[in-house]
Amino acid sequence: MKSDVVVMKLSEMKKENLEQFLADCKAEYAEFQAENLKLDMSRGKPSPKQLDLSMDLMDCLKRDDYKTENGLDCRNYGVLDGIPEAKEFFSKMLGVTPEETIVFGNSSLNVMYWVMSVAMTNGVLGSKPWGQLPKVKFLCPVPGYDRHFAVSEYLGMELVNIPMNEDGPDMDIVEKLVAEDDSIKGIWCVPMYSNPGGVVYSDEVVKRFAALKPKAEDFRIFWDNAYCVHHLVDNPPVQANLLEEAKKAGNEDICYMFASTSKITFPGTGISIMAASEKNLASLKKALGFATIGFDKINQLRHLRFFDGKFENLIEHMKKHKELIAPKFAIVENTLERELADLGIANWSDPKGGYFISFNQKGCAKKIVSLCKEAGVVLTGAGASFPYGKDPEDENIRLSPTFPTEEELQKAMNVFVCSAKIAAAEKLLG
Amino acid sequence: MKSDVVVMKLSEMKKENLEQFLADCKAEYAEFQAENLKLDMSRGKPSPKQLDLSMDLMDCLKRDDYKTENGLDCRNYGVLDGIPEAKEFFSKMLGVTPEETIVFGNSSLNVMYWVMSVAMTNGVLGSKPWGQLPKVKFLCPVPGYDRHFAVSEYLGMELVNIPMNEDGPDMDIVEKLVAEDDSIKGIWCVPMYSNPGGVVYSDEVVKRFAALKPKAEDFRIFWDNAYCVHHLVDNPPVQANLLEEAKKAGNEDICYMFASTSKITFPGTGISIMAASEKNLASLKKALGFATIGFDKINQLRHLRFFDGKFENLIEHMKKHKELIAPKFAIVENTLERELADLGIANWSDPKGGYFISFNQKGCAKKIVSLCKEAGVVLTGAGASFPYGKDPEDENIRLSPTFPTEEELQKAMNVFVCSAKIAAAEKLLG
Repeated sequence: MKSDVVVMKLSEMKKENLEQFLADCKAEYAEFQAENLKLDMSRGKPSPKQLDLSMDLMDCLKRDDYKTENGLDCRNYGVLDGIPEAKEFFSKMLGVTPEETIVFGNSSLNVMYWVMSVAMTNGVLGSKPWGQLPKVKFLCPVPGYDRHFAVSEYLGMELVNIPMNEDGPDMDIVEKLVAEDDSIKGIWCVPMYSNPGGVVYSDEVVKRFAALKPKAEDFRIFWDNAYCVHHLVDNPPVQANLLEEAKKAGNEDICYMFASTSKITFPGTGISIMAASEKNLASLKKALGFATIGFDKINQLRHLRFFDGKFENLIEHMKKHKELIAPKFAIVENTLERELADLGIANWSDPKGGYFISFNQKGCAKKIVSLCKEAGVVLTGAGASFPYGKDPEDENIRLSPTFPTEEELQKAMNVFVCSAKIAAAEKLLG
Repeated sequence: MKSDVVVMKLSEMKKENLEQFLADCKAEYAEFQAENLKLDMSRGKPSPKQLDLSMDLMDCLKRDDYKTENGLDCRNYGVLDGIPEAKEFFSKMLGVTPEETIVFGNSSLNVMYWVMSVAMTNGVLGSKPWGQLPKVKFLCPVPGYDRHFAVSEYLGMELVNIPMNEDGPDMDIVEKLVAEDDSIKGIWCVPMYSNPGGVVYSDEVVKRFAALKPKAEDFRIFWDNAYCVHHLVDNPPVQANLLEEAKKAGNEDICYMFASTSKITFPGTGISIMAASEKNLASLKKALGFATIGFDKINQLRHLRFFDGKFENLIEHMKKHKELIAPKFAIVENTLERELADLGIANWSDPKGGYFISFNQKGCAKKIVSLCKEAGVVLTGAGASFPYGKDPEDENIRLSPTFPTEEELQKAMNVFVCSAKIAAAEKLLG
């Protein structure tokens, strides 16, 4: 795909050269269209090969293996907040104690939804139910995870964009807003390898979150540590622990932390967890008693057997994921670098973990997504990473390299960079 | 335990005889206390032997068996409302079509809670969110299921007692109340073998529910068909189908129907379902898209394999449960009959299915439960079958015969009838 003409910044090209560039790109695009491609880079989905890493989950739990260490029959009713050994094991994912942990079912999004809906119907630690307030605002670092924002929007909240810096959300803005407006009830955070930017919040940012003094006493940080063990590098960053820092700051009720095995074992049948202060957990466990008869304890046992009860096996397991997906991230980054770097039209993230690459090209996101779609490559919708689907600069596209094969991914990226060039050239030509 | 003196109605006994009767009962009671019993009849829990009926569930799903008939990989994300073959299979439990069915996770209580919380936060088919109304009332046929009532109470509703007749809730009262008060938003129903009364709603009652014309457009019947295949007799009653009748009455949006496999396979790791009209389901599926990434599809497959995809196998499976639990119901009923029938102090249900026997002894329920507890027999709390735990006549006790062994159950029932006699005699002696 590498052109053999000297590449230069598109904005510095003469008009006739730019027109030729566009014509060349369009010719290439027409060839892609003729291939009738059907490629999907739209969601952060593990590939079948990644799922194959966990095949032992299908039969690692033996027929007579249905009791906890303390003798509880996991087949029957009983236990709301997770069997003891599952709390012990999975608490390590969030760096907390078993007592600070609840083990749920297969969807951490469902846990976050539930926690938020409880705040809507019953308030937080005795506060007025959010659903009875004239207005509830929720802070949304952007670009961010569309399904987080969708939960708050569905529940009737007003979403407030917070700019992301290289070390996390802009804390000057966060601190100022929450201090003055008690209708702001929380913030969505993906602190490790943020979706889609791949940002790892710095310890400084974590500590500022931990010390946050919101005007609303029932303000909560929704800390979705979805990618806490999902590294793409050999020496992953180590991050300060929010709950620990919040305790130090005498502010331990400020946060709810979440994680899951969705992208560790099988997304369809995993384990999700949350951690919070003693007070928060006591209140949520009480609420849980009304909401369910409990979660799938057999599946908790199954996961423990799969990892042989050793957390280091989970960490080793994640390295196998890395071996499968790091080359895919490399394909995306190499293609972007090779085809776009010199043109000066876009920038993109270089994540050390997680599931996404965030791509920015001002005023061109919608056009690129639409060009890709017409050539058979489905991307996450332009604007999806912003509240209400509105990207103010129409610049951000979330690339999800994990699901396609390497061959499919390379093909999809070829279409993508070609589309990006067309969009840029057309924009410059006006 | 059968006394060799002539038994007669306690209320017709001479005072000195009654005093002797009480003294004899107390002596017997003291013997029970000396045994340091530890028996639990408090919840409708299957026994380990019942769970053993489903042991194949542990390993019936083979390692490479993770795709639906249409090729979907159940290990991965995808499918909100149940895999097609699970909808097909489980829709038969509620006598509806697969299109009228959503397949959820392991807790139907969680589904009911969720549906009700969605009404609280987002209303029903465009109505004002219930959480924003000054008052929401919910009808509770009594005696009924404590955890149903608890959900409504937790969500801030006012609970309204509805008397149960032998053929279901008193429909004259239901029709009158819902026609005049638009703050009444629904009713809890267990239409087959009601908890705890064992009442099977008559077709007449089902049809009157189907034709209900509530003042509140967003009124919904929460039809928890928890025991729809849980028969204790060979020729179980056949009941008119609420959704079908509601369609005939041009009233199909009136109801949500629920069921689960909790007492068919394993309570901890079952499948729950709901059924409703096209309009209701479309709205709830949309809501579901915000609330979760989907339910455990592997477990849906596992259940299909366990029953070999044939619904008649589920029906046959339930006969094995019957063989295990019908003798336990017989122990309870025989003991009550033998020890209490002639005394004229109490009455009890003779259910054809379900999990409970409902026992009534006016003004004595609390005393009996407390006497049992002090002799090491835990029953469901007195009053539990009523909103706010308040049994106006202090008469109802829910007996749950399934979990203890037959030997334990007989022992517990001996304690129970002895306690019932003491309570009755003490009450008469004033």
